[in-house]
Parts: sequence; structure tokens; C-alpha cells
Amino acid sequence: MSRLTVAAVQTSPAFGEVAANVAAALAAVPAACDLAVLPELFSTGYQFRSRDEAFQLAETLPDGPACTALRERAADSGTTLVAGLCERNGERLYNSALLARPDGSWERYRKVHLFWDEKEIFAPGDLGFAVHEACGIGVGMLICFDWIFPEAARTLALAGAVLLAHPANLVLPHCPRSMPVRCIENRVYAVTADRVGREQRTAMPLVFIGRSQVISPEGERLAGCDGEHPGVAVADIDPARTDKQITPRNHLWRDRRPDLYRL
Amino acid sequence: MSRLTVAAVQTSPAFGEVAANVAAALAAVPAACDLAVLPELFSTGYQFRSRDEAFQLAETLPDGPACTALRERAADSGTTLVAGLCERNGERLYNSALLARPDGSWERYRKVHLFWDEKEIFAPGDLGFAVHEACGIGVGMLICFDWIFPEAARTLALAGAVLLAHPANLVLPHCPRSMPVRCIENRVYAVTADRVGREQRTAMPLVFIGRSQVISPEGERLAGCDGEHPGVAVADIDPARTDKQITPRNHLWRDRRPDLYRL
Repeated sequence: MSRLTVAAVQTSPAFGEVAANVAAALAAVPAACDLAVLPELFSTGYQFRSRDEAFQLAETLPDGPACTALRERAADSGTTLVAGLCERNGERLYNSALLARPDGSWERYRKVHLFWDEKEIFAPGDLGFAVHEACGIGVGMLICFDWIFPEAARTLALAGAVLLAHPANLVLPHCPRSMPVRCIENRVYAVTADRVGREQRTAMPLVFIGRSQVISPEGERLAGCDGEHPGVAVADIDPARTDKQITPRNHLWRDRRPDLYRL
Repeated sequence: MSRLTVAAVQTSPAFGEVAANVAAALAAVPAACDLAVLPELFSTGYQFRSRDEAFQLAETLPDGPACTALRERAADSGTTLVAGLCERNGERLYNSALLARPDGSWERYRKVHLFWDEKEIFAPGDLGFAVHEACGIGVGMLICFDWIFPEAARTLALAGAVLLAHPANLVLPHCPRSMPVRCIENRVYAVTADRVGREQRTAMPLVFIGRSQVISPEGERLAGCDGEHPGVAVADIDPARTDKQITPRNHLWRDRRPDLYRL
């Protein structure tokens, strides 16, 4: 596995302005990048006033407008893209992520651990945690609040993920300091793409904290954005550094003792 | 459950000087403290040259000299003590922790995840991860490298631990920044008691990094020691803060999806 260039694209979407949000996000994707991650719900914005409103803004995969734009851009640029979308499937809505490869193929993840009022809008993810081959490595998708459940990243890493692609819309402060621990404990890379800006469409105003970042298997912040501005964090990654042999006598997987865990 | 005062006691033991090490550690335990944690292998030091050497310094529980001193001190002071010991059980050695209550009762944990050359000396722990009632709360014990396996702290928290008592002899830099994440993801307190100083009894010199600390369920460092000196970190804790209802709609346990985890 050779080195790859990966990016977290931090945006500031305007609620409901799908075409403009998609155009701005894709314009920010760096050229000559193997894999880029965009935020959760990157095309619509986050704070739906109702399930009906979300339903109107949702799209089907893979033929909805944002999904189509992502797939076309992946094909044109050679960059694998991961982005969060409001997915409609029949009568159900999911807080989903799309992975679009340059060859036209695509994968989907549906957020398993819904945060707060998302439970009024979305059905919980029903596809589990799968690792997808992309640009020569295993990529696992998580969305935002999934980070707090160590089982999610663990499941992906045990299944062979080299990199966690993590679209987010963070409003609490804990995730940026926690993703390095997800990387250390699983010896994987993580790319968290968050948004900035503010939404106040209900009684609870939300301020998104940005701080998108690319984290190494040793927990280093290889590249990052600030808390207030759109931006891009780009870093080269070396898949060989995700080897689980962390000392001559300690292998992160073989040292596990599932017989003693009660989970 | 009422508030408690807990302490991490950071020491600088001299290898093999059991009586002096025990005396110094117990002298450092604060008065009027409900629970105090002492480092891993607090009585012997860490770097055994051979299994035979460790065997000579090991003791049986609960009647060995360090164990007896801990139990007597707990009874005399009213402070529950947790400390790491080199345990001999027949022909086997364990990197163990003792929990000694003021009423004379005691519990034992045997380190499950052995680090590096410990595998030449100790048998891996065979008792699993158990939660013990002490000073009115559930206490779970972990030793040093156990921290890197999220399943260990998770197992204890799911079984009712309010506090993780974590004797350590840290030589790598990642643990102090990682324990706050163990606390956040499990909504528990953690008390890591590390040592300082240097041992160079084999070809590999070891420098212990100290930085003992008491961490809150929100990942705050309530109290801590530096990286070079013996010391004590004391903090008041409020067991009610370990409630798993982290938003009006998110409960850390009920939101888990074990059906989707592959561990």
C-alpha cells in the first residue's frame, strides 16, 4: 500500500440551499487528492424544523442531486469522495454518508447512533459498520456522534479499516480531542470533516465547532482547520503505519481478550 | 450516593526496597480521603531482570508484607486503598492490584493486558474485569496498559463502575490524554496513579512519566501531578455525575447497538 493524500473539507452550508452548498463544497475539494471527506448533511444543513421539512430536502441514493454531483466529481477528478447526506428511502429518512469512487461505484453508510433531536427525523442506521475498499485501502465510515461509542470505530478497525472517514456537524467540544484516542486504540487514520457556522431554526441555536482534522495512528494531528472558517486540512498518510504490532510483544488485535470482555 | 474525596498517589519507588517503598507510599496518602490509588508494582519497582528475581520479590495475597500494610492502613485510616503488587500464587506470578477496604475485606485484580517484557514475568490475568463496592460506589480496577483496550473500561462501566482505579507505571506518552476519553465515553471517573523516576536494570532504560490524575466523567482533569516529582492529586467526586443520560434523548447505554457491533 502506497502513501495517499487525504483531505477534510470544512464548509459553512446555508440551510436548504442545496445547489449552492454542493457547489461550494466541491469547489473546496483539493486537486490531486486521493480521498476527501465532506461534512455530515453537507448539502442541506442540519437543523430541520420537522420531519416533513427534512423529507422535502432529502434525496434518494445514488440518483439524487447531491449524490449525482459527488459521483460525477469523483469520476472527473479521480478523487474518492465521502459526504453526509439526508437520504430518503421510501417513507424513511436516514442520516447517511455516501462514498463515491472514481470508477463510478459507490457505497452507503446510515448513521447508527443518532444525536438528540435527530431521533425525531431519522431512522437509526440499519446497515451496520462495513469496510469498503477505496483508493487501495479499507475505508470505514462513521458519522458525527458515532465517535462516542468505541465499539463503532473498533468494529471498523477489526474489519480492516485503515482510515475512518468521519463526516460531522459537531456542537459539543469533546470529539476533536477524542478522535486521536480512537486512532491510537485502533491504530488507524481518521479524517473528521466538520462544518462551521450557526443555525437557529428552532428554539435551540446551534454553533458548529469546525476543527476538522486528519489524525495519524499515533494520535498526531497531521492537519486541521480552525473553529470559525471554511477550510481544508490535507495530509499524506502511510497505510503501513496502521500495523497493529505496537511493540515487539504487543499486537493490538492478538492481545485482545474477548473471553474476558462483557459488552 | 454522596460526594467522595479520592486521591492518586504518585511515588518514586527504589527497585527492590519493598519496606521503604511501602512506607513512603503510605506516608503520602492524604488523611480524610475516601479512596486512594497507588501505582502499579508500587512496593517492588517495575523492571525485573528475570522471572526468578520477580518471584523472590513477589508476595501472596492477602498476607504478604505490602498487602498486609495496605490492609492495616485501610483499617486504621478509613481510607479504601488500591495498589499494584507483584503477586505470587503457587508457581505463577501476576501483575495484580489489591483493593483494601476499612472493614478488612479486600479484592484482587490481575492485569489482563500485559505490556512488552511483562509477558516474560507474569501470567495474564485470569479473573476478568469485576466491579467491587467500596465507599458506597462501584469501583473497577485496571492496570496501566489495560487503558488502550476500550473493552476493558467499557466492561467495568457497563457492570456499574462509577470510578476506574488505575495503578500505572507509564513509559509511553499516550495514556494521560486518553483517560479523559475513557471517562467521556463511559461517563465515569478515573484515578490514574503513576510513578516517576528511572530504572535501568536491563539494556532498556525506562523513564516513568508521572502525570497522575483524577478525571471527571466530562473528561476534565480535576487534579493532577507533574511528570517528575512524587505528589498527590486529590479531588472531590460526585457519583451522580456518572448518570448515562447525556442529553434528554441520548443514554450512553440504551443508545448502544450491540447487534451491529462485531467485536
